[in-house]
Amino acid sequence: MSRYIDEKFSSLCAYTPGEQPRDRKYIKLNTNESPYPPSPSVLAAINQSEAESLCLYSDPTSKGLKQALARVYHISDDHIFVSNGSDEILNFAFMLYGGVSGAIFPDITYGFYRVFCDLYGIDAKIVPLKEDFTIDPADYQNTGRFTVIANPNAPTGLTLDAAVLESVICANPDNIVLIDEAYVDFGGQSCYELVKKYDNLIVCQTFSKSRSLAGARLGFCFASPAIIEDLEKIKYSTNPYNINRLSQAAGVAALAENEYYIANCQKIAETREDTVRRLTDLGFRILPSKANFIFAEHERIDGDLFYRQLRERGILVRHFTDERIRNFNRITIGSPEEMDALVQQAETILKGVGK
Amino acid sequence: MSRYIDEKFSSLCAYTPGEQPRDRKYIKLNTNESPYPPSPSVLAAINQSEAESLCLYSDPTSKGLKQALARVYHISDDHIFVSNGSDEILNFAFMLYGGVSGAIFPDITYGFYRVFCDLYGIDAKIVPLKEDFTIDPADYQNTGRFTVIANPNAPTGLTLDAAVLESVICANPDNIVLIDEAYVDFGGQSCYELVKKYDNLIVCQTFSKSRSLAGARLGFCFASPAIIEDLEKIKYSTNPYNINRLSQAAGVAALAENEYYIANCQKIAETREDTVRRLTDLGFRILPSKANFIFAEHERIDGDLFYRQLRERGILVRHFTDERIRNFNRITIGSPEEMDALVQQAETILKGVGK
Repeated sequence: MSRYIDEKFSSLCAYTPGEQPRDRKYIKLNTNESPYPPSPSVLAAINQSEAESLCLYSDPTSKGLKQALARVYHISDDHIFVSNGSDEILNFAFMLYGGVSGAIFPDITYGFYRVFCDLYGIDAKIVPLKEDFTIDPADYQNTGRFTVIANPNAPTGLTLDAAVLESVICANPDNIVLIDEAYVDFGGQSCYELVKKYDNLIVCQTFSKSRSLAGARLGFCFASPAIIEDLEKIKYSTNPYNINRLSQAAGVAALAENEYYIANCQKIAETREDTVRRLTDLGFRILPSKANFIFAEHERIDGDLFYRQLRERGILVRHFTDERIRNFNRITIGSPEEMDALVQQAETILKGVGK
Repeated sequence: MSRYIDEKFSSLCAYTPGEQPRDRKYIKLNTNESPYPPSPSVLAAINQSEAESLCLYSDPTSKGLKQALARVYHISDDHIFVSNGSDEILNFAFMLYGGVSGAIFPDITYGFYRVFCDLYGIDAKIVPLKEDFTIDPADYQNTGRFTVIANPNAPTGLTLDAAVLESVICANPDNIVLIDEAYVDFGGQSCYELVKKYDNLIVCQTFSKSRSLAGARLGFCFASPAIIEDLEKIKYSTNPYNINRLSQAAGVAALAENEYYIANCQKIAETREDTVRRLTDLGFRILPSKANFIFAEHERIDGDLFYRQLRERGILVRHFTDERIRNFNRITIGSPEEMDALVQQAETILKGVGK
């Protein structure tokens, strides 16, 4: 840290992304990436002609990408904002709405929400999940705060019905409710269409998981046109050309072949159910997930030890140190072959720790 | 604007990027893009295999890109930060250092500096350029503020020697001096090596102009390792995967063929000198530019009128409405053919306005 830094940032604790070790080849089940490549349409779009045009700026309005999203989601493009990954939307939303009267979100959820509060000096009300790790909607009535709920939640994978979320949105007419649907395409219910009905709702999604484009950095959200204007204003005040040309082209191409991704999501959901069955047979307790990951613990092995033993065996999963979940690991659903390897190694590790 | 916005942003006036009209094909001399495509190495790097790997996150440390920059610039990679366009670096630097005791920069310079001050509530001391539009280094001694100087300056194209900048850096030991060298490769003197000597210096550059990669969104800066740590901390607290995979690959490939870009910069400098000579012959007054643009006015035609008449004739240049420079236009140096068209249209327009 330099001696010139504004002291309000001196104790800021940044987000820690999933590790990307380079020392050997790993089966990567730690950052919720898709095991399937982008669609043929994306591969065709990333071509020589697009590369030659890199000397020109990208479209700061991302009009083509917004229009492609509007077609697929049957909503007008003034309800859509696009970004350099969905973290950028979360960043802008915390900046715009968090400072007014603080934020509220669960104790166990996407770890970045706390970082944004720390960054912007936002008072955060952290609500414990219930004993079974579910969100109690009663905790989010008339919060008077910028309200953030991940659905499905991470790292639990647990989901709420859209009707339950609507009750929360209704019960907070004077503050923004942001529903983070990064993982919704693997079995959750999206509530994005409610943005036509409620002017206090932001529904955030991403191309990273279901659309196999984590490396392209593309996020999007739905909201009222007035909220979209707010987000655009912050974008044009920080980084107007936020999305590069190739990622805009990749996003448009991915949306043109949407059925490819729907089929991938179904495959991943099937692999998830199969993995859950096999790990349950080995004695794991697994929360009922609708995401492209599962959250699993075993009474016979400490969560951190299981993480480290898998790592030694060439499989990366994500372990968190928060007290309530330190016995769990978050395991991304990879290809069937990758999950075979995981189940096999889990079995071997369990044999090693005895009964 | 929504009714939920934090009122501190309600009067924020965002940056306006150069126009990108789609109504017809224009000769685009308004956003300082390169007329030359990226190098063959970049075209080769944007391939099927890179596109297939888009399902995986990009490296949040951008290690390969930092190492490639370290090799070309003969500096260790702990002196380097890379970003989603250099606007992102400016954004982070204003956020980190501007709030401490305000910022200082010239009245005529990159318009985004004012926006960052507005965004973060930073007190801005705006120093008028001298009558001849040069920066007076005497105005930047012991400023006690986050000091920002674009060199070459935009939109004037005027440059300061590295020795003069060193005197400014020396005279501000207790605050950060940021030198924005977006246009330095077209004839300016970079002072980036001074970051090894001074711990209060940030030197910001970009792949957008000289390296023909405006559409890839790649910026970088040099600074002390402690300042780099500050910038990384803000990155990991806002958007850790800030640079997508394809842009990282493009940047590494561009640096592997650096001589291609050096040759392009020389061609652009030659085209600039030729254009200056021909426009001067037509009676234009042109500030002595070391950038890939020129700043020109003519006593017989109003700046806004000249901009509009060029636009009607299919040529876009950039006109600013600030009082001191409203008779000028900023004209990007394109290909020799594009500049032929500009000179020809300028001559026609001048004939139309009479003596």
